[in-house]
Amino acid sequence: MPQTIERHALVAGGAGFIGAHLVRDLLSRGFKVTVWDNMRTGREKNLAELGNTIDFQKRDIRNSTVEDAAGLKNGRITHIFNLACPASPPHYQKDPIYTWETSVLGTRNLLHIAEAQEALFLHASTSEVYGDPQVHPQSEDYWGNVNPVGLRSCYDEGKRAAETLCADFRRFKNVDARLFRIFNTYGEFMHPDDGRVISNFCVAALKKEPIPIYGDGSQTRSFCYVADLVAGILALSDLPRERYSGPINLGNPHEFSIRELVQVLERVTGQKLITKNLPLPADDPKVRKPVIDRARDALNWEPKIELEAGLKKTLAYFALEIEGVK
Amino acid sequence: MPQTIERHALVAGGAGFIGAHLVRDLLSRGFKVTVWDNMRTGREKNLAELGNTIDFQKRDIRNSTVEDAAGLKNGRITHIFNLACPASPPHYQKDPIYTWETSVLGTRNLLHIAEAQEALFLHASTSEVYGDPQVHPQSEDYWGNVNPVGLRSCYDEGKRAAETLCADFRRFKNVDARLFRIFNTYGEFMHPDDGRVISNFCVAALKKEPIPIYGDGSQTRSFCYVADLVAGILALSDLPRERYSGPINLGNPHEFSIRELVQVLERVTGQKLITKNLPLPADDPKVRKPVIDRARDALNWEPKIELEAGLKKTLAYFALEIEGVK
Repeated sequence: MPQTIERHALVAGGAGFIGAHLVRDLLSRGFKVTVWDNMRTGREKNLAELGNTIDFQKRDIRNSTVEDAAGLKNGRITHIFNLACPASPPHYQKDPIYTWETSVLGTRNLLHIAEAQEALFLHASTSEVYGDPQVHPQSEDYWGNVNPVGLRSCYDEGKRAAETLCADFRRFKNVDARLFRIFNTYGEFMHPDDGRVISNFCVAALKKEPIPIYGDGSQTRSFCYVADLVAGILALSDLPRERYSGPINLGNPHEFSIRELVQVLERVTGQKLITKNLPLPADDPKVRKPVIDRARDALNWEPKIELEAGLKKTLAYFALEIEGVK
Repeated sequence: MPQTIERHALVAGGAGFIGAHLVRDLLSRGFKVTVWDNMRTGREKNLAELGNTIDFQKRDIRNSTVEDAAGLKNGRITHIFNLACPASPPHYQKDPIYTWETSVLGTRNLLHIAEAQEALFLHASTSEVYGDPQVHPQSEDYWGNVNPVGLRSCYDEGKRAAETLCADFRRFKNVDARLFRIFNTYGEFMHPDDGRVISNFCVAALKKEPIPIYGDGSQTRSFCYVADLVAGILALSDLPRERYSGPINLGNPHEFSIRELVQVLERVTGQKLITKNLPLPADDPKVRKPVIDRARDALNWEPKIELEAGLKKTLAYFALEIEGVK
């Protein structure tokens, strides 16, 4: 009988939106889980009910060292999931230097830990590496169109530089670093003031406020329900090492314009919604839609949950969140 | 009579090719000069004749701190010139993680020093931020075409991420950080095994070896003589703060194909040169030529030295270098 290898995941950013889901799915798969989160955008309530089933440590990856990871309660780390970085424009633009440092220094520090512990390294990159794309839809071999010195650059370029270092640790340091590029994702545990379109729309609808539309609403997004995304991340972590061949888009290729999103939300809420128009922020991408052939082929993965179904659950979650605030 | 302000420049990478010129020009302008160089691509002989006229410190900017810069012999730093990073493909691809860390961590550390000392920060970026450009020639508002996970990415993306941080320190930390993007530059103090086309060609011609041509030699480069470049850097450092409006290309817009370069070198050497063809490296840019309108307007700068004149001086320098090796 083969010896059971104990699996221990370090989830950086585990108290954030996606982290909160990933941690739960890892526990249910029998992983031991350590969470590092500095709690700047992560939230205590996202993990509260898990109690001592996880080893939670308030820690900032910008200055984490190989030594910090050496004596963990759960033993040697077999998997590192790097989800630590503010990801919504209002959050990541609030303190751009912090955002850059989290993405760049943080990833560098975690890669050194992965090397020291011989851990599999799963890195959350983003569709923002494609910038304001001139190719549509975006496949992984598109190099992107990113302003290096703009207001979004702290996130976009920080994430690109983090990808580069992951690729070089893979090539030159024998670290099994794998990149996934997350497209727009939504669901339970989102921050109510996340500032992106789904949370903005749900919160406004629930508060009976006008739905804010930036620009003319013709810009498109593809929305992936978080359970689908996390299934993709876990499928990537299960992939045999030799079958990984570069960054993998994880997102829902079903494209909606912002105006269409309003219509879906009207069906979900059963209400006619009032909208208000706001100016389009600088460098806001006009289109964004993943090609997911690589994920289909390599991971046998594709999103299963349609927007209307996912939005129902998300709206119910936000209703409770807003209730709690009252 | 206004009080004379003592000017003290910290030149990171001061023992390298461009640094060696900049240090001399700063001294002749009355600056006190401190050089930090870890001597991985910098060379002792580049600064040897300067002796104690400079404060040379063997130091690596990847782990330099605000404290390291606090008690320098020359006092408070008024100017930081960040030239520290291997810049030729063979050098920067030799240890990609080192290259990335020098560009990214090094720039971050120096920016914190600039903030602490209220120093003007002049950062050497590169035409490589344009990658394999789809727009020709390249002006500063072109966002580039860079592979985030390729063999050149350690340099290209490292430099892009460094630009981003400079721009954000300017916007959010009140650091007067200025970016210049260096296009192909050549001249005395180049490393004989620099690996780029001018040194390759000069060294091969002097050794009576075949001139190596990558690909079919139709790819173009624009070559700037180093004295022109350094004049541009110093003009940028003299610019009133409010007149800086973003990255500035510094390069020679006179474009040559690699085959034309061979012809110029034949005129300079007075010899018919034999060539040999080699495969084009991955991600090698096919064209590269700066638009320098911004430098012309803001700095009243443009290159003055034509390729044939610059190549004469450079060939004479390499002749002595090769003599010394014998």
